[in-house]
Amino acid sequence: MTRNIKLVIEYEGTNYLGWQRQPHGLTIQEVIETSLERITEENIKVIGSGRTDSGVHALGQVANFKTRSRLSTEDFQKGLNSMLPKDIAIIQAGEADAEFHAQFSAKSKVYVYRILNRDFPSALLRKRAWFIPYPLDTKLMNEAVLMLKGEHDFRAFALTGAEVKSTVRTVQDAAIEMQNGLLEFRIEANGFLKRMVRLIVGTLVQVGKQKITPVQFRDILAAGEKMRYVYSAPPCGLYLKEVKY
Amino acid sequence: MTRNIKLVIEYEGTNYLGWQRQPHGLTIQEVIETSLERITEENIKVIGSGRTDSGVHALGQVANFKTRSRLSTEDFQKGLNSMLPKDIAIIQAGEADAEFHAQFSAKSKVYVYRILNRDFPSALLRKRAWFIPYPLDTKLMNEAVLMLKGEHDFRAFALTGAEVKSTVRTVQDAAIEMQNGLLEFRIEANGFLKRMVRLIVGTLVQVGKQKITPVQFRDILAAGEKMRYVYSAPPCGLYLKEVKY
Repeated sequence: MTRNIKLVIEYEGTNYLGWQRQPHGLTIQEVIETSLERITEENIKVIGSGRTDSGVHALGQVANFKTRSRLSTEDFQKGLNSMLPKDIAIIQAGEADAEFHAQFSAKSKVYVYRILNRDFPSALLRKRAWFIPYPLDTKLMNEAVLMLKGEHDFRAFALTGAEVKSTVRTVQDAAIEMQNGLLEFRIEANGFLKRMVRLIVGTLVQVGKQKITPVQFRDILAAGEKMRYVYSAPPCGLYLKEVKY
Repeated sequence: MTRNIKLVIEYEGTNYLGWQRQPHGLTIQEVIETSLERITEENIKVIGSGRTDSGVHALGQVANFKTRSRLSTEDFQKGLNSMLPKDIAIIQAGEADAEFHAQFSAKSKVYVYRILNRDFPSALLRKRAWFIPYPLDTKLMNEAVLMLKGEHDFRAFALTGAEVKSTVRTVQDAAIEMQNGLLEFRIEANGFLKRMVRLIVGTLVQVGKQKITPVQFRDILAAGEKMRYVYSAPPCGLYLKEVKY
């Protein structure tokens, strides 16, 4: 009998070329597939909820795979965690319906982006947050963040080629919060375009630096063109927090 | 005029042989001295509040050094942070009295030790906490922790040679707290013996596993002998949190 197993995965992206298998260089998908093939002695294809870029982290990436193995899900989890490199951890493994598909069944995803905003860097957060030593006006940033909510064409905040049918996405929630010098931006949407969160954050920082106003931020979004002041934030601050089904 | 500069330092200890200069292998003291010598063109001796072992982290190690340089303390901080490897960060730099000595002036130190106590590991905490996948009885551990408070001869929990005059130390505060599967042990004392926190934590875990009772823990402390069940916890979970003057 073919089973469909769902995994929830935490990883530190620093040492990988992102989630998706690449011809050159190590990816998280490939490392998990290799371990699963050793465990099951089958050819395994792991389907992720979506790509994450090189250097981007995950607190709750979701993936699924089909197998004829009779191993319990507990044994899959334990076996994977003992074989995988320590910067990848399986935090959950369970049976899923036959039709469950980590990418197509996803209803929404939550990303967080962390900015360390203070005069001096942090050793422990050096690959876990974007260090910005100049002041940011979080009140203005918050005004801009509110404009993200709802349905918009996000092509101004995307690296898009011909592969995407539509660049319209619905943002259910977006907010920033400041705590102990750590600014956390949280965004939930029904889908994300390539580089979307990092381009939004990079441009929000331009608002925080008062290079553009919240109204100009909204105009960039509305115009749908990649104008001056649309910048990409570095990958190290980005976390795929959760995928909802 | 000779100035005495005080530094507060955060570091991830993973890639170092600890704080103190060693004949072979990189240490934090050496890396900071090298950077300061490049900045001041003087011979600089950095005095730390105490050693930390290989792999142990610091949120607030304190050090001081004498210099004739006229650089402002802000420039020292910025200059060091731009030159140092990113796993060492100067979080504060200030003028100190001529007699200030990071080791001898210290009144107390606070260490924290983090244990990830849940079924599955964490990718992001892999070098930041001790992963223990079996259940720990934190109520029993807490009973044992209370017995640490006050003045005791801690030689059962120390790697000591002839170099220490006394193994008596006063613990001002000790407590454990559990939050989201992360168990944090905090201890403040007027001084710490070599390996003391890790030996205490390793033995507390024996209490949590119900291999020994809190009363047996107290007996080990009272007997002052390194008995069975005195184990050392790994360095990755230990943080020098603060040095008080």
